[in-house]
Amino acid sequence: MLATVIHAPRDIRVEEVPDPSLSTGGDAIVRVVAACVCGSDLWPYRGVTPTEEPHRIGHEFVGVVEEVGPDVREVSVGDFVIAPFYVCDGTCVNCANGVSTSCLKGGWWGSDDRVGGFADGGQGERVRVPLADGTLFVVPGPVSDEDIPGLLTLSDVMGTGHHAAVSAGVGPGDSVVVVGDGAVGLCAIIAAKRLGASIVVAMSRHPQRQALAREFGATHIVAERGKEGVERVRELTSGIGADRVLECVGTKESMDQALRSTRPGGMVGYVGVPNGGPELPIRVMFGRNVGVNGGVAPVRGYIEELLPDVRSGAIKPGLVFDLVLPLAEAAEAYAAMDERRATKVMLQP
Amino acid sequence: MLATVIHAPRDIRVEEVPDPSLSTGGDAIVRVVAACVCGSDLWPYRGVTPTEEPHRIGHEFVGVVEEVGPDVREVSVGDFVIAPFYVCDGTCVNCANGVSTSCLKGGWWGSDDRVGGFADGGQGERVRVPLADGTLFVVPGPVSDEDIPGLLTLSDVMGTGHHAAVSAGVGPGDSVVVVGDGAVGLCAIIAAKRLGASIVVAMSRHPQRQALAREFGATHIVAERGKEGVERVRELTSGIGADRVLECVGTKESMDQALRSTRPGGMVGYVGVPNGGPELPIRVMFGRNVGVNGGVAPVRGYIEELLPDVRSGAIKPGLVFDLVLPLAEAAEAYAAMDERRATKVMLQP
Repeated sequence: MLATVIHAPRDIRVEEVPDPSLSTGGDAIVRVVAACVCGSDLWPYRGVTPTEEPHRIGHEFVGVVEEVGPDVREVSVGDFVIAPFYVCDGTCVNCANGVSTSCLKGGWWGSDDRVGGFADGGQGERVRVPLADGTLFVVPGPVSDEDIPGLLTLSDVMGTGHHAAVSAGVGPGDSVVVVGDGAVGLCAIIAAKRLGASIVVAMSRHPQRQALAREFGATHIVAERGKEGVERVRELTSGIGADRVLECVGTKESMDQALRSTRPGGMVGYVGVPNGGPELPIRVMFGRNVGVNGGVAPVRGYIEELLPDVRSGAIKPGLVFDLVLPLAEAAEAYAAMDERRATKVMLQP
Repeated sequence: MLATVIHAPRDIRVEEVPDPSLSTGGDAIVRVVAACVCGSDLWPYRGVTPTEEPHRIGHEFVGVVEEVGPDVREVSVGDFVIAPFYVCDGTCVNCANGVSTSCLKGGWWGSDDRVGGFADGGQGERVRVPLADGTLFVVPGPVSDEDIPGLLTLSDVMGTGHHAAVSAGVGPGDSVVVVGDGAVGLCAIIAAKRLGASIVVAMSRHPQRQALAREFGATHIVAERGKEGVERVRELTSGIGADRVLECVGTKESMDQALRSTRPGGMVGYVGVPNGGPELPIRVMFGRNVGVNGGVAPVRGYIEELLPDVRSGAIKPGLVFDLVLPLAEAAEAYAAMDERRATKVMLQP
């Protein structure tokens, strides 16, 4: 089959690789209907994180189940499924606590799992899915082509934006600032609005993303950054800063922007993968009682809550896909996102 | 009158200073009935923070109102009052949000306020209290000598321990670890128990404090620190760490202990004044979804909730005082706490 392999920074290839096969009794084989490129895939693409040797890449996909192992109970051949960006059993103590990204038996796409060997990357034609009962979410009823983009966002970006909002404690009437206008930041706007925020400020300098932010529910756009950005936020929030700030980038600058845009007693919800590990300035947090909560989003557990709103059209996170390419053009998908020509690219095998 | 002045590290003197007088219409003059030494007073005492020139010290006191300005409405001459460790108006947007430590008109004992000039330190015979209506809490009914220690803890340590627990989100059935066995840590044990925690682990190596921790509701004592301490905590918490960890010290080591003792998806509530500003390791937090929340505790707002339990004896935070000295012996009070001969010292003018 064909799958995407990163060989080195800016060297993305779609190559022939071995077909996956069932390894453990709990496995499923999924034929990928749609996959996509994540902002975090750009770290190795840009060489920010090293690529020691060529390896498979991609961790967001939806598809149809082609085979299941004898121990699989919840998933059947022919089911349309959403795969979260990680593997989880759904039953361990961390999964039970709602933190399936810390599953005791969990793992990551494109690497060896703990039992069955290699779990394929998501940007390919097929994937061996370990712990299929815990990992895969079966979408009930018929799925049309128009449904695909929205469903695909539930594998990562919509659930991740929702996690930022939940971690920050967004509730009715809150003022919320979203730092970051990538797909996750845009989905965080949807999430904040959906949870009842009355003021939603999108920090963005990109005209098309500003427009989408407004469509998703942003009430204000702030293009300024740094001190000026903080001042503009305070003008919109009784002079003190926002109740909740959603950090969806992962750099030192974006976290500083988030912390300083939060009011005393407020909370930063963060989901931007920390790039290089910026440390948090605890004295800035301490003096103003600004908390920081979040992390790698346990999106598997959010699908059930978010799916009805996606299917009804109440929220339209699928609009973050502004470019669709065949799998064979994965290299162009990465380039388009790297150069900010596209917000998020869907790949169709 | 007499008041405590720090001249240099380990140079604490009780000296004759000018009597306070009303400065603004919202002031009150309070005769101090009892004051105490705070763990944070030990930073300048030990030279960890610099003392550029001699200055008044002390920020926890209870007393009786002797005079009030013409604009004071809520406080009357003769009232027994609790002063929180800071000044606040009780009406600004931050006070309304429950963060009175960030009061827009607020200030600190032993320094100039924004309007009326010098507000005395708490370790003295009398104090000019700015913004008396917002700052002072009037204790209803008669106050006996036995009530004083408990009431005095509401000026700082009991409210601060409670803030750690509230910031961490402690609720019924939670497992809680308390890092730090000083007065604040001990009060955090009371707070965790009071909020319904079912497992309360006190990290302490000090036999007398271990005993008090047990009396306050600790279900387990862990004397180990570092990796061993984390392992002991995990043995008590399904192998994953505690739901909530209360950090009541303020060093890099104590915060590391707290972060690593927290389960995935759990929260650290921290109130230890960051000593020198340890930065938080965000990647440790991100990967396991461990949040950090807290800061300088808005204790003024907690007095109303905690007072009934203190007066009824349902909680006994006054037991943290294991040494009572006359004000004139303030230097010995500091030495006893510095050398850990006393957990917390009460001073009586």
